[in-house]
Amino acid sequence: MARAWHLMRRPNGMPVPEDFALKDFDPGALGDGMVRVANRWLSVDPYMRGRMNDVKSYVPPFALDAPMEGGAVGEVIESNDPGFAPGDMVLHMGGWRDETVAPATSLNKLPPIPGVEPQAFLGNLGLTGGTAYFGLLDAASAREGDIVFVSAAAGAVGSAVVQIAKARGMTVIGSAGGADKCDFVRSLGADAVVDYKAGPVLKQLAEAAPKGIDVYFDNVGGEHLDAALAVARKDGRFAICGMIDIYNEAQPTSLRYIARIIAMRLRLKGFIYTDYLGQLGDFYRDMGGWLATGQVKSRDTVVEGLDHTLDAFLGLFTGANTGKMLLKL
Amino acid sequence: MARAWHLMRRPNGMPVPEDFALKDFDPGALGDGMVRVANRWLSVDPYMRGRMNDVKSYVPPFALDAPMEGGAVGEVIESNDPGFAPGDMVLHMGGWRDETVAPATSLNKLPPIPGVEPQAFLGNLGLTGGTAYFGLLDAASAREGDIVFVSAAAGAVGSAVVQIAKARGMTVIGSAGGADKCDFVRSLGADAVVDYKAGPVLKQLAEAAPKGIDVYFDNVGGEHLDAALAVARKDGRFAICGMIDIYNEAQPTSLRYIARIIAMRLRLKGFIYTDYLGQLGDFYRDMGGWLATGQVKSRDTVVEGLDHTLDAFLGLFTGANTGKMLLKL
Repeated sequence: MARAWHLMRRPNGMPVPEDFALKDFDPGALGDGMVRVANRWLSVDPYMRGRMNDVKSYVPPFALDAPMEGGAVGEVIESNDPGFAPGDMVLHMGGWRDETVAPATSLNKLPPIPGVEPQAFLGNLGLTGGTAYFGLLDAASAREGDIVFVSAAAGAVGSAVVQIAKARGMTVIGSAGGADKCDFVRSLGADAVVDYKAGPVLKQLAEAAPKGIDVYFDNVGGEHLDAALAVARKDGRFAICGMIDIYNEAQPTSLRYIARIIAMRLRLKGFIYTDYLGQLGDFYRDMGGWLATGQVKSRDTVVEGLDHTLDAFLGLFTGANTGKMLLKL
Repeated sequence: MARAWHLMRRPNGMPVPEDFALKDFDPGALGDGMVRVANRWLSVDPYMRGRMNDVKSYVPPFALDAPMEGGAVGEVIESNDPGFAPGDMVLHMGGWRDETVAPATSLNKLPPIPGVEPQAFLGNLGLTGGTAYFGLLDAASAREGDIVFVSAAAGAVGSAVVQIAKARGMTVIGSAGGADKCDFVRSLGADAVVDYKAGPVLKQLAEAAPKGIDVYFDNVGGEHLDAALAVARKDGRFAICGMIDIYNEAQPTSLRYIARIIAMRLRLKGFIYTDYLGQLGDFYRDMGGWLATGQVKSRDTVVEGLDHTLDAFLGLFTGANTGKMLLKL
């Protein structure tokens, strides 16, 4: 038997262990065109919190008491499709479990990029790196010379944003919680850091960016978004990527500086990674190059064992990760 | 002596008459290249409230105890510039006064558009109509078939938005306060109305737009903006034009549905009319045509006499106007 995490009820606010159960399940027989995959790496990502609610959004809600889904990298162990053979490493959405049987059409062989570990396809070469890349360069139209502010800069997406922005000749201010994470953000090349645990964001941001900012990459919403509105200069562009501050609460967001959207002619653009699947070639080329030269470095926080998937996921909301949070099987 | 309104102190919240004074002043001698203009029509606009604060914005703050400024249409009564002669009707920024002496370079002769009254250049052919035109068609990229929601739809900008949207084949839902104004919005061609004084905006909007909205033209901010976020569908576009709800208060805006920017990939764009001065030719052509065919009608609320300028201005914040608020001298 394989094992998979099930969502047993819709969380109310911050999820608790009782909302979930790890259950045995039978992945099923290997029909025509089907492939059996043993997962090696599972991704946990903040957006998954949204799928736990029963609301229409960009991905459908998780069904109750059924194996959950999520990004995963695994190894083909049995194949009934001519396109896959045992030993192939594949990227797919059958995560939150140790084994899956899936149609060959739902699997992607890892692109042959030299010197890259398989788990990078869940991080800098996958959802989080791609989110950083397309959000910064397309949704925010960031360009050389821009002053960029990014929240959750020690996280998976944020740390990629910092490094991509530096690789493209921008000035970067990153926000993170606590001295260790701020040191990490500096080590990625950030020109200045804001420690949101050390005091109000706006005061620190205004000091770090006395001329204002051109771009804000929003991973958190709330106070960070308001501070960015306050210091954005004319024609500023915001990529609205995530609002982890509010995923778990029913409280509205309070914005004091929202009218500056008008005065400064700001543009705020929401986006998600899958909007850009047609442009993955550009992304693999650029990100592959940066990883090869070391201009972008991967740092993962690795939790081991399927039993601890939930710890890894919940840790996303308490700042337990630096860089990409991964589960190793 | 001429007379002009002075701002005597910075208003705290909603302006009160004691913040202002109507004073005699000497417009000065007619130097080389200068023109003397007797004002016939003065514009009062919500954006002027922003200029009463001592903060950096898209227009500089009003100086204290000096003649205030604003859009005006006047008649040249004396000219020391070869480009202007007595009798010429001009559009200029020397409003809030009955007479001004200004450099010829700061005056614009009214474009020769047949059948148009001079005061239209303060309304549908001026700041407010242009704001509606460029905001709807450029900032929000609205196109035929879109479902458009516009707040303050009985106001100067909003009533132009309703009519332009209908002229371009869109479905329009307009919000206004009270049955009379809602009737007026319907008479402009709106497909549905929301009476914000009759109940929560979101509930009414969701009923009026069961399929959601593609475009929101925001004149007010606050509850209307939040309702628009709640019902916007994928790739929705918001033109952020004004936030009259918060111009006079220091309270932050509370948004419950802001994370839908991500889920629905919304784009919010702030803009102001003067961003588009290079494209006035398109605007005069289209709006002139619509006025000629009656597809866009002008409705003004006219207050008479310089002494009542302040009543007209303050009336903007209490809903005293239907259509464009003008002062006639």
